[in-house]
Formats: sequence, structure tokens, C-alpha cells
Amino acid sequence: MKVGELGERALVKLISKLIDCTAVLCPGADDCSAIAYGDDYLVITTDMLHKKTHFPREMTAYQIGWMAAAATLSDIAAMGAVPIGALMAVGIPRDTEVTVAIDVMRGCNACCTQNGTMLLGGDTDEHEELTLVGTAIGSVRKDKMLTRAGAKAGDVVCVTGELGLAAAGVRILLENRSIDHPLKERALKKLFEPEPRIAYGKVLADSGEVTALIDTSDGLGLSLYELSKASNCGFFLRAEDLPISDAARSVSTDRWDTLTLAVYRGGDYELLFTVRRGRLAAIQVPYTVIGEVTESGMQLDVDGVVQELKEEGYEHLTASGSKV
Amino acid sequence: MKVGELGERALVKLISKLIDCTAVLCPGADDCSAIAYGDDYLVITTDMLHKKTHFPREMTAYQIGWMAAAATLSDIAAMGAVPIGALMAVGIPRDTEVTVAIDVMRGCNACCTQNGTMLLGGDTDEHEELTLVGTAIGSVRKDKMLTRAGAKAGDVVCVTGELGLAAAGVRILLENRSIDHPLKERALKKLFEPEPRIAYGKVLADSGEVTALIDTSDGLGLSLYELSKASNCGFFLRAEDLPISDAARSVSTDRWDTLTLAVYRGGDYELLFTVRRGRLAAIQVPYTVIGEVTESGMQLDVDGVVQELKEEGYEHLTASGSKV
Repeated sequence: MKVGELGERALVKLISKLIDCTAVLCPGADDCSAIAYGDDYLVITTDMLHKKTHFPREMTAYQIGWMAAAATLSDIAAMGAVPIGALMAVGIPRDTEVTVAIDVMRGCNACCTQNGTMLLGGDTDEHEELTLVGTAIGSVRKDKMLTRAGAKAGDVVCVTGELGLAAAGVRILLENRSIDHPLKERALKKLFEPEPRIAYGKVLADSGEVTALIDTSDGLGLSLYELSKASNCGFFLRAEDLPISDAARSVSTDRWDTLTLAVYRGGDYELLFTVRRGRLAAIQVPYTVIGEVTESGMQLDVDGVVQELKEEGYEHLTASGSKV
Repeated sequence: MKVGELGERALVKLISKLIDCTAVLCPGADDCSAIAYGDDYLVITTDMLHKKTHFPREMTAYQIGWMAAAATLSDIAAMGAVPIGALMAVGIPRDTEVTVAIDVMRGCNACCTQNGTMLLGGDTDEHEELTLVGTAIGSVRKDKMLTRAGAKAGDVVCVTGELGLAAAGVRILLENRSIDHPLKERALKKLFEPEPRIAYGKVLADSGEVTALIDTSDGLGLSLYELSKASNCGFFLRAEDLPISDAARSVSTDRWDTLTLAVYRGGDYELLFTVRRGRLAAIQVPYTVIGEVTESGMQLDVDGVVQELKEEGYEHLTASGSKV
């Protein structure tokens, strides 16, 4: 069988099985792997992005660098950890302008420094296709680390920021939708220069009241499924409570379409988390309560009609884009 | 100007300048970057390898995975550090057999476990060209870390293992040279499955008598130049003392050609280090003394004739191969 027939998820599952890993969290188990180091866990993650599937031609070189750093730093945030540093290996075609290569690294560097960390390593190599592999390492006190596991029936479900803003950006790009200029600018900035929620992640970890955490890079729906599998729980969400971005409403054709952008499209890089009931006062980040943890079932209440949440989402920008 | 015209080294220099790094060792300064963490330094490095320039078609998938892990672990060894873990991002063409992808990861995994560490992370992604990006993280007590800087005039220069074994392998492949079967097997194994000298690196660091350390992945000549620049010193080597592999002697045409393989070709992944004079007894790894550190100048004494060591070597297997 070919890799393309098997699919990435099944391949990762196969690979996870053959790896001899004795860490606390091994590859594939969470946003990061984690290994004990004194009183802390070191958390670490790597992500490969490349031109064809991740960088639409509208992205600037600076944004490409920013995105590669942001994607990997977001995984650190999703453990409640603080980044120690990031590394960026860059494969560059020979005929790339040097200024472009420089701008890519300026974007990486800016994303790191603006999130309280730094580029700790790099490699450049000639490559046919522009390829960026970002790696981030962070640390978190052992008793503070948050993972996808830990959500309990009765907990409330929260998300930071807005939903569907990046997806609106994809649609604006692909369909050239007419939309208010400030909204368009916000959507494209979110799509091309997402903010890894490092500061939020630390505050959530320090609160002691968060039971599970994940980022929404793959979309709200898929992220809920990941929490459900790791925590062995269900979810009940109310559509009216979702903090859907105005941009997503502006570019969508009807309510169902709006919900598709908000729930089944990724790229927002927000934090999705569960909190012990009655403990929301301890959560010192801006968030919206969108539902609750249940024993089982994945349900979305849309104006009184309860439907099954689908396990649907898209991992990459252009893959997402091509389906919107 | 295009990246291909500028060249990789000049590009790295440009990029190093724009990065805001406040670590003890920043990208480009040594085999790894290093950052303080409690009583230790965390050392970290990333390397991008891909099919066209790094993986000759004679390599098995298992060996490709092994090589990617070994290359990055060797950088950890070159700091006198112990690996905490490695990560491997793999870009795989759609039409790759799943068994091939599995074998690549088996090779990575084997190299990690056989060197006392483990695969802590990974990513797979569809890619036109098989591309592996290995990242390794290690730790070393602050007072034990070894770098390229620290060699002093009067120190003795040592190297582990043999020189030119991997280069002999390249020549066997490219020119189908006739050579004893056992030697051929050893040379190809060295070329395709180099051993990162993790255990040696730790012993050297613990000895307290090593003043500078680097790996010889880029060849003895280039590695000496790196030590020279970082330590602000010179070297005087004797050709007759070099531990040249029998395979390199077997495939070469004359003494000069043998020296070229031993000094100006890479891929051996041995450790090159300098030791305080009179302190060799503290060095508990197998090594050969090949010369001494001087105030300045890069000299090689060949049968009584002193010549200038050239700043010459090749970073990648096939680049090396094409010139042998």
C-alpha cells in the first residue's frame, strides 16, 4: 500500500506503535511529547510546513516564517507550558531571492521574540520546494501541565478568541468575497499571522482549575473529538453561545454555512479548554463558555435542534481552503 | 541576489545576525545552541536532510532514518552532552510504500534507542521529495559543557576512530572500486549508518581535561578550521599519525589521494578534540593523537614537508561523492 492511500493519521498511528518511548507523553498522544526533567516536564513538538500545502501565494515571506513559528509555539501553549526556544530548519529553492529567505527568518524571529522566546537553532538547505520545519521546546512544572486528558462530565467548555476568523480569510482569498475592509484585514492577518496563545496557556495552567486543554489549529470540531478521545467524555455545545467572528458571518451564505466555518474549519490557533464547574472565576483570560462536558456523545444544539458534531476539519490552510 | 549564488554559509551568517538570541550559545556558533536551565545547559540542534543531496539510492529506508537521527545526535555528542530525546519530521511522497515509511522510522528509532535516548516527537507530511528533519535535545552540567572554543597552544589534538572510512564508502559506490569484501562492508556501514559518539562525548566532558570538541561530520580539515576560528588558535598535524582507515588506503590511488580522503572528506562522525598537555591519561575513550595546538597557522607535516591545511570539505554525502 502507498502512503497516499493509507493517509497521514493511519500512518502516524502505525509509527507511534513502533517507537520505543518511555516518556510521560509520547509522540502522537498530545499537542507535545513530555519528558520529566527535575521538577518540570520538558515539552517538545515539531511541525513540517511547505509551500504547496501551507503557504498560499498571498502570504508574504515574513508571514510564512511567522506562521511556521506560531504553529509550533501554539502546541507549547496547549500544554500550559512556557517556551524555552524554537528551531527552524528551512529548505529553500536555489533561485529564491536572498531577501525572501531573510524575510522568512525575520518572521520566525519576530514570532518568537513577541512571544517571550527566541530562535535557538536553525538549518538551511537547498530544496526544490520551500519547506519549513519548526520545533519548539518548553517547560512546565509537573503539577501544572495540562493535556487533552482530564475533562470530566459537568465541567464547562470554553474557548479563547473568536471562531471562524481564519476560515473567513480562506474564503476571502479563494472566492474574493466582498467584505468590509477592516474585517478582511483582520481575517487575513489571523490566517497568515496567527497568535500562539502562550500567555493564555500559562495563565490557564497556573489557575489550577483547568482540566483539559488543546489548541484549535485543526478546528473546533476536530479539537473536541481529540479531547473526547483523550478524556473519554462527551460534549454538549450550544451554537448560539459560539463566539463566531463577524468576518465568518459576513462571508457565509446562511446559518449552516456560518457554523461550518466556525466549527469545522481550522487555523484560528485559539485555546479550547474545560474548567471545573463553579470555578470560572479563577480563569483570568478572555474566554467564552460554549457548552459542557458530558459522559458521552458529541452534540451541538442549533436553535433547539440537537445534532451530532461531526469529526471533521482540515489540518492545513490550503487543504481547508480548497473545501470551503 | 539568489540564494544559490550567495551560498549556504553566507546565508547562515546573514540570518545569524538578524536573530535576537540571548542564549549562552546561539545558532551558528557551535554544533548546538545552548541555553541555561537550572544547573544545566540544554543543548539543541536541527538538521534537514533530503533525498536528492543526502540519500544515495543504495541506502535502505532503515539507513535513511538511522542517518537522520545519527547526524543530529552527533551534534549533541559534540557538546559533551547526553541526549534527552530526538524528534523527526518526515516529508514523504504520496506514492511511497507504507513499508518504506515504516522502515525509515524504525531506523530513527533504532539509532535513538541504541544511543540511550528515544524519539520524542514527529510529524509526517506529504512532500514531493523524501525529506527528514531531525532535531535533538540534550543536557550537560554547566561546568562540563564542551564547545569549539577553548583549545590553547600546547594542547594535544586527538580524534576517535578512523579517518576516511565513510569517504572510502562514497568512492566504492561511485566508482565501484574493487576492495576486500569485509572492508567494503565496513565502509558502507560507516557511510550509511554512522555511530554518533554519544558515550565518548560524555566521557570526554566528564574528564575535565578536554579543552575543545567538535564532530568530524564535515571532514577533519573543515572541523579543524572551525576549532581554529572558535578557539583563535592554529594546528600542526603529522600525516603519519593520522589513523587512516584501511578502506581509504585500499580505494585511493596514491598517498596524496589517501590523505584527501582522510582529511578533506566528511561523513565519519567521529569526535575531534584537544586535551591539556600531560593529561592524556584522563581520556578514557579510544583515540589517536594526531598533532598539537599552535598559536596560529594550519599545518600538515607530510613526510617532513610542511604544507598548509586547506579549508576544504563537503557537508553532504552526495555532494562529497560527486567530487571524490
